[in-house]
Amino acid sequence: MSNSTQKIKAGILGASGYTGAEAMRLLLRHPNVELTLLTADRKAGLSVEEVYPHLGGYGLPDMISVKDADWNSVDVVFCGLPHGTTQEIIATLPATVKVIDLSADFRLRNADTYAEWYGHKHMAMTLQAGAVYGLTEFNRDAVKDARLVACPGCYPTATLIALLPLVSAGLVDPQDLVIDAKSGLTGAGRGLKQNTLFSEAGEGLSPYSVAKHRHAPEIEQEVALSAGLSDADVRVNFVPHLVPMSRGELVTCHVRLAAGKTVGELRAEYAKIFQNEPFVRLLKEGDMPQTQMVRGSNNCVLNVFEDRIPGRATVIAAIDNLVKGSSGQAVQNMNLMFGFDETLGLEQVALFP
Amino acid sequence: MSNSTQKIKAGILGASGYTGAEAMRLLLRHPNVELTLLTADRKAGLSVEEVYPHLGGYGLPDMISVKDADWNSVDVVFCGLPHGTTQEIIATLPATVKVIDLSADFRLRNADTYAEWYGHKHMAMTLQAGAVYGLTEFNRDAVKDARLVACPGCYPTATLIALLPLVSAGLVDPQDLVIDAKSGLTGAGRGLKQNTLFSEAGEGLSPYSVAKHRHAPEIEQEVALSAGLSDADVRVNFVPHLVPMSRGELVTCHVRLAAGKTVGELRAEYAKIFQNEPFVRLLKEGDMPQTQMVRGSNNCVLNVFEDRIPGRATVIAAIDNLVKGSSGQAVQNMNLMFGFDETLGLEQVALFP
Amino acid sequence: MSNSTQKIKAGILGASGYTGAEAMRLLLRHPNVELTLLTADRKAGLSVEEVYPHLGGYGLPDMISVKDADWNSVDVVFCGLPHGTTQEIIATLPATVKVIDLSADFRLRNADTYAEWYGHKHMAMTLQAGAVYGLTEFNRDAVKDARLVACPGCYPTATLIALLPLVSAGLVDPQDLVIDAKSGLTGAGRGLKQNTLFSEAGEGLSPYSVAKHRHAPEIEQEVALSAGLSDADVRVNFVPHLVPMSRGELVTCHVRLAAGKTVGELRAEYAKIFQNEPFVRLLKEGDMPQTQMVRGSNNCVLNVFEDRIPGRATVIAAIDNLVKGSSGQAVQNMNLMFGFDETLGLEQVALFP
Amino acid sequence: MSNSTQKIKAGILGASGYTGAEAMRLLLRHPNVELTLLTADRKAGLSVEEVYPHLGGYGLPDMISVKDADWNSVDVVFCGLPHGTTQEIIATLPATVKVIDLSADFRLRNADTYAEWYGHKHMAMTLQAGAVYGLTEFNRDAVKDARLVACPGCYPTATLIALLPLVSAGLVDPQDLVIDAKSGLTGAGRGLKQNTLFSEAGEGLSPYSVAKHRHAPEIEQEVALSAGLSDADVRVNFVPHLVPMSRGELVTCHVRLAAGKTVGELRAEYAKIFQNEPFVRLLKEGDMPQTQMVRGSNNCVLNVFEDRIPGRATVIAAIDNLVKGSSGQAVQNMNLMFGFDETLGLEQVALFP
Repeated sequence: MSNSTQKIKAGILGASGYTGAEAMRLLLRHPNVELTLLTADRKAGLSVEEVYPHLGGYGLPDMISVKDADWNSVDVVFCGLPHGTTQEIIATLPATVKVIDLSADFRLRNADTYAEWYGHKHMAMTLQAGAVYGLTEFNRDAVKDARLVACPGCYPTATLIALLPLVSAGLVDPQDLVIDAKSGLTGAGRGLKQNTLFSEAGEGLSPYSVAKHRHAPEIEQEVALSAGLSDADVRVNFVPHLVPMSRGELVTCHVRLAAGKTVGELRAEYAKIFQNEPFVRLLKEGDMPQTQMVRGSNNCVLNVFEDRIPGRATVIAAIDNLVKGSSGQAVQNMNLMFGFDETLGLEQVALFP
Repeated sequence: MSNSTQKIKAGILGASGYTGAEAMRLLLRHPNVELTLLTADRKAGLSVEEVYPHLGGYGLPDMISVKDADWNSVDVVFCGLPHGTTQEIIATLPATVKVIDLSADFRLRNADTYAEWYGHKHMAMTLQAGAVYGLTEFNRDAVKDARLVACPGCYPTATLIALLPLVSAGLVDPQDLVIDAKSGLTGAGRGLKQNTLFSEAGEGLSPYSVAKHRHAPEIEQEVALSAGLSDADVRVNFVPHLVPMSRGELVTCHVRLAAGKTVGELRAEYAKIFQNEPFVRLLKEGDMPQTQMVRGSNNCVLNVFEDRIPGRATVIAAIDNLVKGSSGQAVQNMNLMFGFDETLGLEQVALFP
Repeated sequence: MSNSTQKIKAGILGASGYTGAEAMRLLLRHPNVELTLLTADRKAGLSVEEVYPHLGGYGLPDMISVKDADWNSVDVVFCGLPHGTTQEIIATLPATVKVIDLSADFRLRNADTYAEWYGHKHMAMTLQAGAVYGLTEFNRDAVKDARLVACPGCYPTATLIALLPLVSAGLVDPQDLVIDAKSGLTGAGRGLKQNTLFSEAGEGLSPYSVAKHRHAPEIEQEVALSAGLSDADVRVNFVPHLVPMSRGELVTCHVRLAAGKTVGELRAEYAKIFQNEPFVRLLKEGDMPQTQMVRGSNNCVLNVFEDRIPGRATVIAAIDNLVKGSSGQAVQNMNLMFGFDETLGLEQVALFP
Repeated sequence: MSNSTQKIKAGILGASGYTGAEAMRLLLRHPNVELTLLTADRKAGLSVEEVYPHLGGYGLPDMISVKDADWNSVDVVFCGLPHGTTQEIIATLPATVKVIDLSADFRLRNADTYAEWYGHKHMAMTLQAGAVYGLTEFNRDAVKDARLVACPGCYPTATLIALLPLVSAGLVDPQDLVIDAKSGLTGAGRGLKQNTLFSEAGEGLSPYSVAKHRHAPEIEQEVALSAGLSDADVRVNFVPHLVPMSRGELVTCHVRLAAGKTVGELRAEYAKIFQNEPFVRLLKEGDMPQTQMVRGSNNCVLNVFEDRIPGRATVIAAIDNLVKGSSGQAVQNMNLMFGFDETLGLEQVALFP
């Protein structure tokens, strides 16, 4: 393990949320990182143990208000702030601080689309222009050189890993992408909401934001970009559901094959694209991706299935929404930005059962 | 409550499974029914309390082997036997005994389709010819006069309630029906399987039988029949998932509107078709069907949502797989077959939280 | 079923909480009751469906503010208001309205004890003097004649059913009662608290209020009263835990036998006391009470086990905290207060699985 | 990380069970260990991925039958075999192979006690005589020199960490130890049992083996030994419960203080004993141990609470039953046996939420 003089100093903004907690969990065991700054405005003054008892005893700094942060004390910040507030804070940071943003603030490249889906004008479009979309497997080189990385949403992460290879290679029809997505409750955050109480969400299944989820335009943007299509050429029908589990996310993509293409070609494309990826695993033919296979790990498992209906296939991908879908991918990006081995701090094997 | 001389006598074959237990739960409180026969070959000789402790203390008869059953002691039997065994037993019953079958044995009208999906030749196609498909809301008159009712599978129940009105009225394209289905673990039965252990299924989401589930041809058959189409005109892409909850089933149907049709017309059709149905409830515009709304009840809640993509809509329906998806619908059919009020014994309000 | 002219009119104060919802669920199917008043100050103006979607479609009245209630429209009210507010409201009701209180306001007979545990002076000790403690099985005659019934807390209900027969008969040492209690999350109410979020409470077990829970003095009061002891003669060590399930409560009582007494005598006492009780079931020797046996029902199952250590025994009782532990017992009391059959509206069989 | 020439070679006997899977998870990331042997008689010939999909892709050897094992290929074996079979297999191993046993075969020092509780004569009492009880924190020096370590049961691990300091220091009465224990479902193993199905165990709480659990004599043995008492001087009332979660174990110990002792003295003793322990954490006064704090980690959190009843206290300890309660503690012992840093491979932070 490197000695501490070689470590970079990292901060987490919005450390009291679940993505913040998960970033702490991972960075605590990262050999090249020291956590020196934790902000949480409403929890300012509290110890980490008071906010997250499972993180007590590790000597982490107390939570402070973001306005009291000493930006010279950090080489990189992870931003787990609510959408909309991130852009203003990031705009004020010294240029020497690298930024890995877990919010949605820098994901959408088009100012109008942002305003339409997030309900207010974007305040830092200049920064946006320099932001790199941090879907690591497809953007590795750009991430290495980035100062600001916008990590994908959890649903886009799993969905794009599943769809980008297929659309880019012209194997499926980009106008007929039906994505039926399912997430555990941590996807809804730590805020107090009636529908995320144990007694309300337990033993039940709830669709939400049907045809209105903000991850839909993000998916369309990246699919279009990846395949060199215009936005109008991509059609995503996206329906998410809350599943009674804490972690885990699974996307079931019902796709239509491009004319003359076969499911075998889809498998072959995946095998080629992901053969050397440390965190993406194409399962053996017929094996089902399950969220249980990836819990607590940065892994994504996926597979493709031929449908009974000629010309249709089903692609299924599973991730842990808090790891590959959020803080794990953020650490993966950090590793690239600082020239570390991409897997550093992310070696955990999935926790099952 | 009627006095016991007016009660019909009912038996449950395969009473040790979950559908059997659920039938007992409902019939114990049915004012016009007396449970006089319970069979369970591997549990023969045991009391109900030994097999299902929550049903102890109600004075139910002990489990016996089906070969020891006195068929003269019953007016009606509910068959919760494994697929394949039902047809042979039912073929031997006196014609005076009405039969409500919860297995798949009499659901498929075509002998070849049955053989293809269930892996063996059907042994009682003559009986099949007289069987009525017991999707109550759409087959009420035939059920009233039936001697043998084949209750639909749990997935077909929710799916057909959602799709039949739309396909019959020509509102959606029957060749582009994508059904993403989710069920609680009771749907997998009480048999001992590793993947249904708490430690394996809990905190996880598992797709299964992708493109291979036996409920797909059942759905196609009924959709085609209802709309006066040939089987080849109907195309169902069906992917089921196991969700970490005991009860509950939700189907998310991604449909394409027929040319010129609007989501408003779909809503109007539902409103018309279901306006007097005691167990089907069209939710207010925008409200999400959730399995929590129907747990333990015979209700089905549904709604339809316009998609962002022009010409597409999402229909969502939720039921309790053990009630409306199985034993509750069976009791509903029994009520019709004996001229009782259709809701008798099924008045329970959903159990929430 | 009685026709509506014979029905009594009932109101629920605090109908938006879980006990309120459960009272609605039960009373909707009570043949002799019509629900005419629902109050919920923070939800005033909303329909029942908006507050509890599973209760939509039954034609219940909208929620109103308690200050707008017409007390002449009701024969009885169920009070599910927060502790402390109940007493002031009840004090203003016309004497013709019977009151079944689900809060803690009238459970403790001693004003000082109340003030010590609830943090403020009791405002209606005169009413308290006339209140009957509604542990139905042990207080049946008094309940019949009561105008105000104070329903026991959920933990005291299960604990007292288990302990009162033993202490009253001098079979166990009242100074060495160790009660290890476990409850599902609904016991913590519908209020928004971080520790009751699905992601926090799921897959975890949390003790709370160790040695500080308000149900401890309530248990001590009733044990002492029942056995003719002074409060100082009764010693209850009470530790509750939150278990990751919505409903259900189980108390494990570790007791010391009185000199010369045997576990057989404890069993015999239970058998005698509970032989004709409709809702209390002594299990067969060796059978384990489980919350799964009573979910959704008004039943209590219990059993007693000899310990390896001479002179010690373990008594275990399970109830559904929202039914027998709250709204079900309240309905049971209402039935007595109005001369109905005690089991009316409470016939539901437990929901398992 | 050490290079592979320095690594020891480890085998897991009974790798298809949950403790086996957990040992694989931990050892895969241990820098000084290479997994070279996996046995599982009923799964012989299968790949790890087929038995545990989440462990696919790591290049582990296939499962083989124990009779086909090459004992010269390993420096150490972890035995996760069923109780009773372990002793015969271990007796045949070359003396050069160190053994870390996760079964109960070598935990009880007395042959009669073993026969009484496990139902058959012990077949390897000579080996037993040399076995070291692997409760690491209390037996560190003996473990370092051991060839055969008998890892404690999961309940004894948490219970003894909580009780040994108190009994050894004479702070509590060893004749009045009431232990109310709760475990997640993995504690019941991967074998197919009806009561561990999701639909049976979910949403429910089940006591089991009341006064009959095999961990009771194990706890008594170690408490007596630690305090220099005879077995007859120690009295443990032990009642375990199955809680609807996969992992996690919590013991609530209701203890009586020795004459004149205070809860402050208990706290002080814990603080002294555990001050330098890497895996045991005494929480701040008043903070509740919860299983959520330790999931997936080798940590034990504990605290002590003064009771309302003078002279009584409650001690609560929480562990992950599969880590500190089983495979994690086994790895901790292995580290000592091979002179590694005790925390190697066990650095994972708890997974929450």
